[in-house]
This record gives sequence, structure tokens and C-alpha cells, in this order.
Amino acid sequence: MEKQRSTTREENTVFIGNKPFMNYVTGVVMQFTTQAAKEVVVKARGKFISRCVDVSEVAAKRFLENAVEVNNIKIDSEEFENKEGKTIRVSTIEITLIKK
Amino acid sequence: MEKQRSTTREENTVFIGNKPFMNYVTGVVMQFTTQAAKEVVVKARGKFISRCVDVSEVAAKRFLENAVEVNNIKIDSEEFENKEGKTIRVSTIEITLIKK
Repeated sequence: MEKQRSTTREENTVFIGNKPFMNYVTGVVMQFTTQAAKEVVVKARGKFISRCVDVSEVAAKRFLENAVEVNNIKIDSEEFENKEGKTIRVSTIEITLIKK
Repeated sequence: MEKQRSTTREENTVFIGNKPFMNYVTGVVMQFTTQAAKEVVVKARGKFISRCVDVSEVAAKRFLENAVEVNNIKIDSEEFENKEGKTIRVSTIEITLIKK
């Protein structure tokens, strides 16, 4: 997960994995505050999708209330082969938060 | 979860819980095929959100490819008090699938 984060081309992206929940919320909030980002994209795959929604909701509604809102949500699927050569499908989500 | 499903006012809603995955996919597909629905809303709360995205993706891309697409995605939060009087926040998602 972290590997993917470092290779993503967007600077204002937070990729959700299994680190403590508040790490991600703080990451999103800091992008808007100390980095003065106009837009932050919160991304996740598979089982981390629920968490991605939680992080976005907590950041936008509790920490950045009236300042940030959900602008766009995209879902998609990725397919890849596992070690046994079996095709695995995994869902993805991208939640775009913007400054109001 | 199931209680909420039965009290929802929309007929074309599939509420995701912990029944077998394919039950929900079949539920969505049947709405479009045997019920001739033009629109189906797939909803979930909390940890079932990842599953809700999976069900929508599998229904739209594998079973109803070229016939159904994701039209809209909404996320929100619900707050309620637990037995101890503590306020709990839970995220929700609603994915609207429509006939192309």
C-alpha cells in the first residue's frame, strides 16, 4: 500500500491502509491546512474502502466542517493475477475533497 | 440491518449486510432483469461499505456489462447514541445503478 502511495503522481493524495485511523485523518487535514491544498484525493482498495469513507467523513465533517466538502466519488475495479495465476478482482474508490 | 431494509420506502433498494456476497449481487441483477427496474440503489453502513462497492462493481461490470452503470454515489454520516449514552458516528454509502 505504501509503495503505491509514493509512486502516485498526485501530491495531494492520501492512500488508506492499515495504519492507525487518525494518521489518515490528520494527513488529510494537514494537506488542507499546512499545505494549503485546494483539493485532496483519498483513495483505497478492497477492504480499506469503508475506512476511506470514514476518513473522508471525519475530516470533512468534524475537523474541517464548513471549510471542506466531498466533491466527487469514483468507484472502479482492478484485475490482477495472483501467484497461482488466478485473476483477482478488487474494487477501488477515490473520494475528492475540496475547499469550499 | 434487515429491519432497516424492510422499512425503507424505495422498492429498488438493496441493503448490504452479512449474508453471502452473491445473494446481494443476484438481488441487484434480478431487480434489473425480472423486475425491469430502471434504477437500483445499493446501500450500506460502516464496515459493509467495502462490500457495497464490490456488489455494485460485480453487478455492473460482470453480470450487467454494457447494460447498467454507476450513476451516482453519495456518502454521509449517521450519529446515534449507544447503550452507554456515547455518541457513535457511522458512515453510509448509497450507490445508484441505472440502466444504460
